[in-house]
Amino acid sequence: MPTSVPNPRDTEAKLDHILRHSARIFADKGFEGASIRDISRATGVSLSGLYYYFDSKQKLLYLIQHNTFTFILARLQSRLPGASEPAARLRILVANHIEYFLSHPNEMKVLSHEEEALDEPLHAEIAAIKRKYYGLARKVFDDLAAAGLAPALKSRVAVLSLFGMMNWVYKWHNPEVDPGSDELTDHIVRIFLHGVLPTEAAAKESVPDTTLAVP
Amino acid sequence: MPTSVPNPRDTEAKLDHILRHSARIFADKGFEGASIRDISRATGVSLSGLYYYFDSKQKLLYLIQHNTFTFILARLQSRLPGASEPAARLRILVANHIEYFLSHPNEMKVLSHEEEALDEPLHAEIAAIKRKYYGLARKVFDDLAAAGLAPALKSRVAVLSLFGMMNWVYKWHNPEVDPGSDELTDHIVRIFLHGVLPTEAAAKESVPDTTLAVP
Repeated sequence: MPTSVPNPRDTEAKLDHILRHSARIFADKGFEGASIRDISRATGVSLSGLYYYFDSKQKLLYLIQHNTFTFILARLQSRLPGASEPAARLRILVANHIEYFLSHPNEMKVLSHEEEALDEPLHAEIAAIKRKYYGLARKVFDDLAAAGLAPALKSRVAVLSLFGMMNWVYKWHNPEVDPGSDELTDHIVRIFLHGVLPTEAAAKESVPDTTLAVP
Repeated sequence: MPTSVPNPRDTEAKLDHILRHSARIFADKGFEGASIRDISRATGVSLSGLYYYFDSKQKLLYLIQHNTFTFILARLQSRLPGASEPAARLRILVANHIEYFLSHPNEMKVLSHEEEALDEPLHAEIAAIKRKYYGLARKVFDDLAAAGLAPALKSRVAVLSLFGMMNWVYKWHNPEVDPGSDELTDHIVRIFLHGVLPTEAAAKESVPDTTLAVP
């Protein structure tokens, strides 16, 4: 009876569909305020259909967090070997993060707001993936730092400040007026590496040659 | 009957006490999940005592947001005239923000997570104070930009990236291992103005004089 066996691809696509809509509902109503009935309405999947994929709201939140972090971590791991120069690797890190969250603002909000809503052992599982992601980001940064870092800067504070710039984007980014993924990545990498002020090198470039002789 | 008239100072101190504990409860349980009964238990103030100050949970959330933004904005306005140099004024902005939120992490979390929980017209009132605060920060930044900004950087993106660094702090700051207010302010100002890499000027300073002659 081949028609009764679900196609694994369809199953995965349906789960994706459920997770994206659930993230939107959690983002709108909060995890506490949203019900499985809301999820069913938003996804067009019956309650019993939903229970094929998860048996509780907790498990649904876990799936959203798990899939997001796993995806973003795996994609970063696959992209990093594309560059060896520390600053280029940092750009890959920022681009990978920004690209994902500009197109998934609901997921970003849910990750940020509902991080403590998960009970154990689900919470610990997510924390482990996050530690791995932070560890990889920290490694990218430490390679950069080995090539020369401003004196007296603490690596932990610097990396978490970078995450601050990236993770706050969902709060303010308006696709109508704000830069898209590439240009936003440029901004964040520029600010993080060189700051908002013109570098001496850049300043020199913008001054006509003839003035260079003036004391 | 002088004893029946509440001392305005006591009333204000009691309201402060209520708001701080309420912020902690909202931070722990979320606005949706917290009840006025929880607030009463946490503050030791009876339900009827609480109703002297606010008549709904909405109004309580409004008071937390209103008092926080009003305080931080007023303190910034009073401190800014202390410096005229753009970078020094930026440092005042960052110090004022970081100082407040390092000592009020619950308020920071509530402002960030429950910004949409307020109904109108309360929501619009808070939005107006926030716009004023953003406007002042933007002015500080624009004065800096007028003195010279890296080419191709958009002011709006730069200012909101700065807020990202500052507003994400409550997510990761651990007083046991992380820098206090002054040192954290130094880090954020340094990264925002000059980036994490050594500036050419700083690099020169760290090189012994004798090597400067070497090509």
